[in-house]
Amino acid sequence: MRRSILLTPGPTQVPEEALAIASMPIMHHRTPQFEKIFAEVEESLKYVFQTANPVLIFTSSGTGAMESTIVNTLSPGDKVIVIVGGKFGERWAEIAKAYNLNLIQLDVPWDQVIDVDRLKKTIEENPDTKAILTTLSETSTGGVTDIESISKITKDKDMLLVVDAISGLGVTNIKTDEWGVDVVIAGSQKGLMIPPGLAFVSVSEKAQKFMENSKLPKYYFSWKKSLKNLDKNTTPWTPGISLIMQINEALKLIKAEGLENVFKRHSRLSKAIREAMLALNLEIYNKNTGDTCTAVKVPEGIDGEKMVKICRDKFMVTLTGGQDQLKGKIFRISAMGNVNENDLMLGVTVVERVLSELGYKFNKGSGVAAAMKSLEEQGA
Amino acid sequence: MRRSILLTPGPTQVPEEALAIASMPIMHHRTPQFEKIFAEVEESLKYVFQTANPVLIFTSSGTGAMESTIVNTLSPGDKVIVIVGGKFGERWAEIAKAYNLNLIQLDVPWDQVIDVDRLKKTIEENPDTKAILTTLSETSTGGVTDIESISKITKDKDMLLVVDAISGLGVTNIKTDEWGVDVVIAGSQKGLMIPPGLAFVSVSEKAQKFMENSKLPKYYFSWKKSLKNLDKNTTPWTPGISLIMQINEALKLIKAEGLENVFKRHSRLSKAIREAMLALNLEIYNKNTGDTCTAVKVPEGIDGEKMVKICRDKFMVTLTGGQDQLKGKIFRISAMGNVNENDLMLGVTVVERVLSELGYKFNKGSGVAAAMKSLEEQGA
Repeated sequence: MRRSILLTPGPTQVPEEALAIASMPIMHHRTPQFEKIFAEVEESLKYVFQTANPVLIFTSSGTGAMESTIVNTLSPGDKVIVIVGGKFGERWAEIAKAYNLNLIQLDVPWDQVIDVDRLKKTIEENPDTKAILTTLSETSTGGVTDIESISKITKDKDMLLVVDAISGLGVTNIKTDEWGVDVVIAGSQKGLMIPPGLAFVSVSEKAQKFMENSKLPKYYFSWKKSLKNLDKNTTPWTPGISLIMQINEALKLIKAEGLENVFKRHSRLSKAIREAMLALNLEIYNKNTGDTCTAVKVPEGIDGEKMVKICRDKFMVTLTGGQDQLKGKIFRISAMGNVNENDLMLGVTVVERVLSELGYKFNKGSGVAAAMKSLEEQGA
Repeated sequence: MRRSILLTPGPTQVPEEALAIASMPIMHHRTPQFEKIFAEVEESLKYVFQTANPVLIFTSSGTGAMESTIVNTLSPGDKVIVIVGGKFGERWAEIAKAYNLNLIQLDVPWDQVIDVDRLKKTIEENPDTKAILTTLSETSTGGVTDIESISKITKDKDMLLVVDAISGLGVTNIKTDEWGVDVVIAGSQKGLMIPPGLAFVSVSEKAQKFMENSKLPKYYFSWKKSLKNLDKNTTPWTPGISLIMQINEALKLIKAEGLENVFKRHSRLSKAIREAMLALNLEIYNKNTGDTCTAVKVPEGIDGEKMVKICRDKFMVTLTGGQDQLKGKIFRISAMGNVNENDLMLGVTVVERVLSELGYKFNKGSGVAAAMKSLEEQGA
C-alpha cells in the first residue's frame, strides 16, 4: 500500500480537482466550448503573471518556452548577458550558444546568486546588450535572484529583461508589469500544480517590438503565430487539451486562495523547512535561499543519492538530490505547489528517520520540533 | 445530460483505461519507477512504428516533431521536395521556408494525392535532393499517399524519405523498416488515442547519418540530446509525465488487439462510412480516400459549417468541417482510434437527421441501411 508524497520542485502534487478532470472524456479543441475554457485560462494566467500583456501558451516543457524567447526576440550575433549560477542558468547559455548569439556569461558560484552591482557594471560596459537572460528561482541550488533590483537597471534601456520563472511563478513574488519584466517564463508542473506539458511566456510591449526585428528562424514556437491565434482564444497547433482543462482547475484554486496568500503559504512552509534543517545541524546550501526550494548540504560521510533513494523507495517521500557538481552533496526539499502542513511534517520525520538509518548523529525529533515551533510562531 | 461522441481525425476518443490513469497522483520523472514505464512505452512505440530504430518522444504537438526533423537532418540551402496536397503538406512547405531550405514544391489538387511517376521524374531531375517531405494521411482532405511506392524510389538514394504519419500511424499500414522510410512522425491524439501533447519520430540509420552533418540550429528539439537520453530511458527535458502514463495504457490496448487487427478495424469501419455517405447520394471528396478520415462534399445549398455545428451542439456528435479553401464545402467523418460500431452507426443517424433538418432530400434511413449492410458483409 503506497501513498506517496512529493516534496519536489516540480513536478508538484496535482490537486484533486485537476486530477479528476483529466479523466473526463476529451473535447475537440476547434470548438466554441473549448475556446471558452481557453479564454478563462488566459485570463487567469494574466492574474498569476501579474500582467496585462498577453501570456502565450505552448505545449512543451519550460525549456521550449525559453528557446521561444531567444528565437522570437533576437537575431544571430546579438549580444546577451547570461547569468549562470546553476543548471538552469547554464541552460540559457546553452540555448544562446545554439543560436550563435554573442554571449557574455556571468558565472556565479552555485551557493550564491548574482550580485546586482556586478551585473549593473557589465550592462554599463556593454550598452549594446539586447537581453539579460536570468532565472528567478534556480531550482538546482535554491537561490532566488533579486529580479526587482535588476529590473530597475533594464527598465528604461533598449534591452530586454528575460526571466525564467519556471519554478518561481505562483510560488514567490514577481511583479511582471510593475517591475517592468519583459518576458516571464513558466511551466505547468511547478507552482501551477498540474502535470508537465504546458509552458507560458508573458510578452511586454518592448518584447513585442523586439519580435518585429528578430531574424532567428522559428516555426513551432513562433510568437507571432501564437499571438495571432490568442486573439481567437486558440493556439496555432493542437494544444495539450487535457492539460488546458487541468490548469483551468488549478488556476481557479489559486484565484480562490489569492496570489498574496499563495506566496505567504509558500513562505511560511519554506521557513519551517529551513528551521527544521538547521535544528538537525544541517547547512542550507545557497546563501540566497528563497521560498521555492531548499537545498540542504548532505552531512559528511552520508551518501546523498542513497538518502534520497531510501526516502522515496522505503518511506514514499520524494525529495530530489543534487545535479551535476552537486550530485550526492545536497538534497532538495520543497513545499512548492499543492503541499500542506501535514505533507511537510511527514517529510521532516522521514528526513530524520533516513538520516538516522544512515548513521547521522542528531537529537531525534529536533527537526520536527523546530518545524512545529516555526509553524506555530508564524500563525495559521 | 450530455454523452458526446468524437468522429474526428484527432483528437480522438481516449479509452477508459487511459482516462483513468490520468487521475492518478503524479509521479516524479527522474526515478527508476518512471524510467521503467518510459522503457515500456518506447518498446511499444517500436512495435506500432514497425521499426527496430529509436523512436524519439517529444512533448509537443506533431508540428514540433515535423520541425525537429528539418532542423536535425538538414542545413541551410539544402534542396527538399515537398508534396503539397492539403493543409499538412502546406505545413511542410512553411517549415522548410522558415529554415531557408531550397524548396521544390509539388502542388497537387486537394482532391487527389501525388502521382508517384511525377515525383519520380522530379527526383531524377534533382539528384541533389536531400529529403522528400510528404504526408501519409492528409487529414485535411482524406487522401492517403502511396508511401510504399515512393519508398522504392528513395530507398537506395542518398536522400531521406520523411513521412508525416501524424493522423495515419496506428490507423493505416506504414511498414517503416520494411519499406525503408527514414523518418516517420506521429502525434499522441490520433491513432494512439490519448490527449494531444506528445509527438514521436522514428529515426533510421540513414537519418542518423544526416543528423551528424546537419547545421540548422536546434535545442529543445535536438535529436542528439533526445537519443542520448533515450539510452537511459528518459528525455533531456521534463516530459509530459501524465501523457506518458496514458500512452502506456493505450499502447497496451493496441498490442493486445494486434496491429493488423487495428488496421482491419479501421478499414472495416471506414468502408461502412463511405458506403453510408454514397447511399445518401453524397460524394467522397478525395479520389484516394483511405481508411483514416473521409472528407464528404457538402450538398449544394447546404452550409457545411452550420451542419457541423448542429451535429455537435444539438446531437453531441463532433465531426469536423473543411479548412481553408474547403471551409463550408466538406465535412469530415472518421472512425479513427477508439471508435466502435455503435459510435459509427449513431454518427450516421445524426448526419441523416441534420441533413434532413437543413432541407437536403434523400431516402431517410438509406445511410444507416448502407452502413449496416457494409458491416454485415464485411463480417465481424
